Amino acid sequence: MDQKFDRRQLLKTMGVSSLALGLAGTVTLAHAKKKDSEIPPSPYYGAAKLKKGHAKRKRWPYVELDPDEVAQRAYWGYYQGECMYGVAAAVIDTLREKIGGPWDAFPSQAALYGSGGVLGWATLCGANNAVGLIAGLVARDPMAVIDELYAFYSYAKLPNFFPKERKHPDMKIVRSVSDSVLCHVSVTNWCAASGHKAFAPERSERCGLVVASVAKKLVETLNADAKKEFVAAYPIPESVQECRGCHDKGSELENTRGKMECVTCHTDQKEDHP
Amino acid sequence: MDQKFDRRQLLKTMGVSSLALGLAGTVTLAHAKKKDSEIPPSPYYGAAKLKKGHAKRKRWPYVELDPDEVAQRAYWGYYQGECMYGVAAAVIDTLREKIGGPWDAFPSQAALYGSGGVLGWATLCGANNAVGLIAGLVARDPMAVIDELYAFYSYAKLPNFFPKERKHPDMKIVRSVSDSVLCHVSVTNWCAASGHKAFAPERSERCGLVVASVAKKLVETLNADAKKEFVAAYPIPESVQECRGCHDKGSELENTRGKMECVTCHTDQKEDHP
Repeated sequence: MDQKFDRRQLLKTMGVSSLALGLAGTVTLAHAKKKDSEIPPSPYYGAAKLKKGHAKRKRWPYVELDPDEVAQRAYWGYYQGECMYGVAAAVIDTLREKIGGPWDAFPSQAALYGSGGVLGWATLCGANNAVGLIAGLVARDPMAVIDELYAFYSYAKLPNFFPKERKHPDMKIVRSVSDSVLCHVSVTNWCAASGHKAFAPERSERCGLVVASVAKKLVETLNADAKKEFVAAYPIPESVQECRGCHDKGSELENTRGKMECVTCHTDQKEDHP
Repeated sequence: MDQKFDRRQLLKTMGVSSLALGLAGTVTLAHAKKKDSEIPPSPYYGAAKLKKGHAKRKRWPYVELDPDEVAQRAYWGYYQGECMYGVAAAVIDTLREKIGGPWDAFPSQAALYGSGGVLGWATLCGANNAVGLIAGLVARDPMAVIDELYAFYSYAKLPNFFPKERKHPDMKIVRSVSDSVLCHVSVTNWCAASGHKAFAPERSERCGLVVASVAKKLVETLNADAKKEFVAAYPIPESVQECRGCHDKGSELENTRGKMECVTCHTDQKEDHP
C-alpha cells in the first residue's frame, strides 16, 4: 500500500466519520490488548456499567417515530417472525435506518425467541416482551412505559389498530379484552370471544393486528416519554391495587409480587377472604 | 496530520487487527452510502435475514463453557441487575471474553428489563426470559433447550446449585417446586414453603441461587446441544400433554395454546370435565 495513504481517504473507504473514528481510536486501545475485534467499544455495547455494585444502563438513542408507520411494519414483521419480532424489529430496524450508531449492531433477530410466549410456551405475549426490551433500552422511565403498555394490553379491547395494508384485508377480526399480559390467557379469551380455533388463520391475523396495536401504542408512549410529556392513560386498576395492598411489597402478608390482573386466575375466592 | 501517516500505525492506534479492518473496509462501502456508522455490517447484526418471507436467524458463535463458573457469575450478576440480567450477562459476558466477535456488540444491559418478571410485573421469571434470549441466539435447537429449561424450572426442587461464593453464605435457603415458569407463582410457592416474605433478603438470596441454578443447567444443556449430544431430562409431563390433547394445536377444541403446567391455575375443574 502507498505509504502516502491519506487518512481522510481511508476513513472514507471505511465508511465512518472521522469524529466517530477519533472516538473509537481512543477507546479501543485497552480493548485491543484483550483480543482482535470487529467491534469498536462503545458505552452502548458490552457489559452494563457497574455503579456501586449495580448494573446501570446506558440509555440508547431514540428519535420521534411515526406510530402508524411502525405499526404497519410491525404487522408485516409478525408474519415474518411472529409477535416479539414484529414489535421489536419494527422499532429497532426503523431506528437503525434513522439513527444508525449502536442500532447497527443490535440484532432484531434476537427477538425471534419470544414467539407464542417464548416458542409456544404461551407465557408473556411476545409483543409485551418486546415492549420490555425496547423500553429498557430507550425509555427515560422504562417502568412507566411498561406499566402503561401492559395495562393497555390487559384492559383495552384489542386489536384497536388496523393498518392499511394487510395479508387478509377482508378478514373480520373480533376484538376482545385479554385480562392478562400472558399469551395463553390472551389467546384463550379471544378464542372464546370469536369462536375461532387457536391455530386458525383468523387467530394469526388477530395476533398480527395486536402486534400492530401494541407497536403503535409503544411508539406513542416512547415519543411522549422522550419529550417528558408522558401521562398514564392506563393506570393499574384499583381492584389490583387493593389485592396488592395485602399481598405485595410492604403489606401485612407480603406473600407474592406482581401487577397482573388477579382474578383472571384467582376466580375462586374463599368465603372468608376479606 | 502527516501525509506520510503509516496505515499500519493507524490500525495500531485504532486497536484493531489489519485483518478485521480489511474486512470492515470492504463491507462498509455499501453501508457508508446510507449513513456514517461505527459498526461494520456482519451477518450477526441488524435485521434478521428474510427467507421466503420468514425471518431467519443466523446462529451466534458458542464455545463450551464451564457450568459452575457461569453459575457463580450469574449469582453475582443477580445482585447487580437481578434475574434476567444475572443469567444473560453471565453467558454473554463470558462469550465476549472467550470469543469476542459479535458478542462485543451485544449489550448484556439489554436484559435489565426482565427483572421481577419484567420490572415487577411478575410475568415470566427473568431467568427464563434470559434462557429464551440466549437459546434463541446460540442453540442448534432453541425449542429443545427452552423446553428442557422451562420444565426444569417448573418441576425441579430449586435452587439446586449453591455457588462457592455467596453474599449470604450462612443463610439457609429452603428449596421449593415452582410449578410454573412465572415469577408470581414461583415466588408465591417459595414464600409458602419457606415462611419468608416476598421482599425479604432471604427471597432475594433464593432468587440469586435460582438464577445460578438456571445458568448452570442452561450451560450444561447448551454444551450438549453444541455437541449434538442433548437428551431431554425434563420432558413435558404427561398430565400437561393430556390437557393439550384436547385444548392445544390440532385437538378437537383447540381453544388455547401453551406448555405451562395447567393445574397451577386451573384448580377448580368442573365435575363434568372429562
